[in-house]
Amino acid sequence: MKSAISSLISSRNFNLHRSSLSFSIFRRPSLLLPSQFPVISTDDKATGANFTSLRRKCRFHSNKSSPIMASSFNPEQARSPPAVPLPIPPVTKFKIGLCQLTVTPDKQRNIEHARKAIEEAVEKGAQLVVLPEIWNGPYSNDSFPVYAEDIEAGGDASPSTAMLSEVSRRLKVTIVGGSIAERSGDKLYNACCIFGTDGKLKAKHRKIHLFDIDIPGKITFIESKTLTAGQTPTVVDTEVGRIGIGICYDIRFQELAMIYAARGAHLICYPGAFNMTTGPLHWELLQRARAADNQLYVATCSPARDVGAGYVAWGHSTLVGPFGEVLATTEHDEAIIIAEIDYSLIELRRTNLPLLKQKRGDLYQLVDVERLKSE
Amino acid sequence: MKSAISSLISSRNFNLHRSSLSFSIFRRPSLLLPSQFPVISTDDKATGANFTSLRRKCRFHSNKSSPIMASSFNPEQARSPPAVPLPIPPVTKFKIGLCQLTVTPDKQRNIEHARKAIEEAVEKGAQLVVLPEIWNGPYSNDSFPVYAEDIEAGGDASPSTAMLSEVSRRLKVTIVGGSIAERSGDKLYNACCIFGTDGKLKAKHRKIHLFDIDIPGKITFIESKTLTAGQTPTVVDTEVGRIGIGICYDIRFQELAMIYAARGAHLICYPGAFNMTTGPLHWELLQRARAADNQLYVATCSPARDVGAGYVAWGHSTLVGPFGEVLATTEHDEAIIIAEIDYSLIELRRTNLPLLKQKRGDLYQLVDVERLKSE
Repeated sequence: MKSAISSLISSRNFNLHRSSLSFSIFRRPSLLLPSQFPVISTDDKATGANFTSLRRKCRFHSNKSSPIMASSFNPEQARSPPAVPLPIPPVTKFKIGLCQLTVTPDKQRNIEHARKAIEEAVEKGAQLVVLPEIWNGPYSNDSFPVYAEDIEAGGDASPSTAMLSEVSRRLKVTIVGGSIAERSGDKLYNACCIFGTDGKLKAKHRKIHLFDIDIPGKITFIESKTLTAGQTPTVVDTEVGRIGIGICYDIRFQELAMIYAARGAHLICYPGAFNMTTGPLHWELLQRARAADNQLYVATCSPARDVGAGYVAWGHSTLVGPFGEVLATTEHDEAIIIAEIDYSLIELRRTNLPLLKQKRGDLYQLVDVERLKSE
Repeated sequence: MKSAISSLISSRNFNLHRSSLSFSIFRRPSLLLPSQFPVISTDDKATGANFTSLRRKCRFHSNKSSPIMASSFNPEQARSPPAVPLPIPPVTKFKIGLCQLTVTPDKQRNIEHARKAIEEAVEKGAQLVVLPEIWNGPYSNDSFPVYAEDIEAGGDASPSTAMLSEVSRRLKVTIVGGSIAERSGDKLYNACCIFGTDGKLKAKHRKIHLFDIDIPGKITFIESKTLTAGQTPTVVDTEVGRIGIGICYDIRFQELAMIYAARGAHLICYPGAFNMTTGPLHWELLQRARAADNQLYVATCSPARDVGAGYVAWGHSTLVGPFGEVLATTEHDEAIIIAEIDYSLIELRRTNLPLLKQKRGDLYQLVDVERLKSE
């Protein structure tokens, strides 16, 4: 362990937006897992079902980890590739702002409203601001094509992200920009844009798991009628730590959060608009479970509730700590939550309950297909 | 699909106790997944780190499933081997009894007390009775060797399981016998015995994840000081459905519940004695998360609280439905919970939220090492 204390490793973001490929340097205090941080080529993305090369790579890793992990249960093999060490974030303590916004059919109003909310959150000390899922127009299959923007083209083709870029640069704030409908060629996505303090798009997450559910008499929604699912998990290194991104229904798939934890995320942000049926049943439960199971922070941001809307959001934007504890939350009205994140609690909880060292790699293994392919 | 409606498949329990190897026949109404229920040889257990043969077997399965699963996202590949179809249980609706018992240092009293509780639960209609973790003596590293029994030897060498066998046969009830300390050679285990209505030991689960935690000033316990961890997950076919077994700390490892779901479990039983720190924080959260994420029933059974004991249990034995909903629970005093289980709700919830068909096998895959080895 001692030689690793002062070692420096270079890491690259997974799924970095190509216009903002960046390198981050982290100092690593102790080695939980194998010593080489895997370098992922962004050219080597999982795009389809080419499992031939994967088959060659799929293996149970040799037990080459540091003595601290020595165990016949091979805990490091519970993730394939093995989990990366938790990076030291650029900042340990900071404030997050969750903007639970009312959303109207007036896109220009929504954009101005979001701009003001971000400004207010920053005024109150937020270094990271999170917006709701689909904040620039109504959440409906009819509206997605109407409000969709060409994010890659930018500028006038995407006034919503142009605003996010402008504010993040001007106020030097990191923004997890909720989500908007994205038009790309003849396809539509539910996309979350992450902007750095320089105003640049650092990453874009396209919702991986589309919201297709049918609870008769309660809630039926088939997002796949209009939207296409994203092809890759998204973890991005920001000025406020390594953040994994999921959008709403993505939170139901525990595997995604497990992958993010194994990639070294400090925080997972889920912009999401749960509804009046699944909201009370599952919204807080899923957030707390993802945080407690993976021993990291989880932040969610919902639109405020509009009972006149076609889709009525549950609200209840929340910050959860690495012990599964609700640190800050709100009801369903418009609100800006300002709450403190302290990443040192991640290490503390992982020391209290050393789940990572107790996993049974001899019995189960979660494969991160994209990382495995890129090895 | 139509040809499968009347097909019969034979299945064998995973991790069956050798004295009670049995076969179960299930009628399968629809094929969610590949048509051949994997047959696992009990001689082919995962016993060590022989990953050579595993490497050969480790692969991404071809997409040979039924049309219902056709998807470029390969949802069936999210589990390796692919999940087995949910078997039709011998009974759809039945009552479960959770006996939250006071435990004293008097073993003979504990055994008689448990016998009476089981009898009372059966009188009230329970077809399945669950007992707490470590119910025949105090929960402590000092007590484990003193109260341990040789379960394999049986008879006088194991009065606790002899009682369970006698009651289950006499009352024709299935018993998930909480857990007791088991002596096997020079090793001690925390073991749960499952008895069928014929009084035979159907399966024995040895706690896989030992309870080694350290929350200074709150709770520190190192179970591995005296106990040895079990080597295999346990799923058993009973007269009341396919049941996965975990003991207490096992519930923290979501992978185990995911494996049980993929093996076709209807219900996971976790005898467990959470404490006054982690109990209020995590006990209900973890139960609800395992149930909601895996869309199956979860039942837990704790000892009643004894504030004078060295280890003070949280209590709160609970039954959770496949939507993550608490169906029945109690406080910390001694209690027998009688509640109805309706397995048809599993199918309903999996139709409402078809998570199994929405998983992204192209992005993540959970490997069940034991099943993979046995293929």
